[in-house]
Amino acid sequence: MKIQKIAVLGAGLLGASIMQAAKARGVASQCVAWSRSAETRDFCRQTSYCDAVFETPQEAVAGADIVVACVPVDKIVPLLETCVPAIKQGALITDVGSVKAAICAEADRVLPPELCFVGSHPMAGSELNGIAAARSDLLDGHLCFVADDERSRRTGAGTRACAFWEKLGMRTRLVCPKEHDAIVAHVSHLPHSVAVALSAALASKPLGWRECGAGGLRDTTRVSAGNPKVWRSILEENRSEILPALELFLARIESLRNALRDENSEQLLEILSAASAWRLPLSMQ
Amino acid sequence: MKIQKIAVLGAGLLGASIMQAAKARGVASQCVAWSRSAETRDFCRQTSYCDAVFETPQEAVAGADIVVACVPVDKIVPLLETCVPAIKQGALITDVGSVKAAICAEADRVLPPELCFVGSHPMAGSELNGIAAARSDLLDGHLCFVADDERSRRTGAGTRACAFWEKLGMRTRLVCPKEHDAIVAHVSHLPHSVAVALSAALASKPLGWRECGAGGLRDTTRVSAGNPKVWRSILEENRSEILPALELFLARIESLRNALRDENSEQLLEILSAASAWRLPLSMQ
Repeated sequence: MKIQKIAVLGAGLLGASIMQAAKARGVASQCVAWSRSAETRDFCRQTSYCDAVFETPQEAVAGADIVVACVPVDKIVPLLETCVPAIKQGALITDVGSVKAAICAEADRVLPPELCFVGSHPMAGSELNGIAAARSDLLDGHLCFVADDERSRRTGAGTRACAFWEKLGMRTRLVCPKEHDAIVAHVSHLPHSVAVALSAALASKPLGWRECGAGGLRDTTRVSAGNPKVWRSILEENRSEILPALELFLARIESLRNALRDENSEQLLEILSAASAWRLPLSMQ
Repeated sequence: MKIQKIAVLGAGLLGASIMQAAKARGVASQCVAWSRSAETRDFCRQTSYCDAVFETPQEAVAGADIVVACVPVDKIVPLLETCVPAIKQGALITDVGSVKAAICAEADRVLPPELCFVGSHPMAGSELNGIAAARSDLLDGHLCFVADDERSRRTGAGTRACAFWEKLGMRTRLVCPKEHDAIVAHVSHLPHSVAVALSAALASKPLGWRECGAGGLRDTTRVSAGNPKVWRSILEENRSEILPALELFLARIESLRNALRDENSEQLLEILSAASAWRLPLSMQ
């Protein structure tokens, strides 16, 4: 069944990529957006994939079958709350926030119980931000977590959201919000933190060294180019899950440092081998 | 001036990519190789870029104008030493080892002073190893360090090696061996160590989590798939430069952890901003 109208709140990298994918795949007849930035609204008017752009989120959500909140994690539920009176009955409401337990709990406190809301987290992105970096294939083949909680089961929002993301080309996985946060703390927020610490360390060395690196340096640090404020919100929202993940990492990097310092060649090989065995299958895919 | 014959000792990822690039760019009339592995020698015989492959390194270097040792760092000078009697007078001898101070010092102790040897380090690679992963464009546009020491200046090997690597499509930089080791400790060996510790940490979590990551996880961990024994040699050979680089990184990741733990939002933003400012220009290139 074709969706008549998708409203995207926040037309940044993800919001605009969702509109592009929906248009490219014929998922929706109409894609509309709200952006608080006049510049982004102007950009939207120049595109072929955004049919209308509004100055208020309430105008954007009016009549939409699907509303996707694509704003920073700490803004999602407050924004949706202001939209509730304007949302069409039965519309599916979701988001793209990188943490889920806090957002789903806040949604339960704040949003009417009959609202068909479910948290989503499409695991796709770029170190570049904003609508100009959006691509119709950004979501292709990537995993989208959909929060499996009481509301999503009761309202059917979980199943509907999975169907929506799959139409956009994603794989989906229903998972309880707390488990989601533990997984992404390890596979997304920890790698991000590690890349950030690496770039921050290298920033204290001669600037010319940056151009001496090859693909290894580029890849290992890539995500650290991401927007600092956006990532601060994400790290702070998922603090309780990231801290133990950081400790786990610190224990490993200290083992590696100790093995090298103490000339413990066996232990060094053990760590290198464990890492290679874990990572190699991803290179073979 | 076209080179008549290049001999590659060790026909792995780099050795075979050098032969491919030399053939693709018409840099040499003949490319020959030695490999200690019968399987790799058989592979060589099936390729169009390797004109002859030998069972002993002495046979391979006979008559060559350029000899490139592409074996693990701890094997380079011992291997070259056994080849000295077979090397043509005036031939340029170099290597691709990831560390330079120890190799250049060892070369000075062991190789005849008139031998036109200079250490090189092409900063190109892949997490995949072996001749099957070789590519004619592996070196394209990447930086090749050439060791600037007393022998390389006296024999002219430094200038000749730069010209050789540039013909293969690389940028070159003459740098003293000790400075080279400090730079690569930071831009290559530290990122590798960090990626290894990250993969090793994630290896202790449910295996299914590995498939939940997106590009960020893939990129941040990519190099850790590399060959454990090769990387153990590299880390051990450059131990004295890597240990302070690891300490620098540890200080930054601990600052990040502390900022998150202590809810020091300002400090967290400072680290994220320093990292992003340092890394963003590489994404813009």
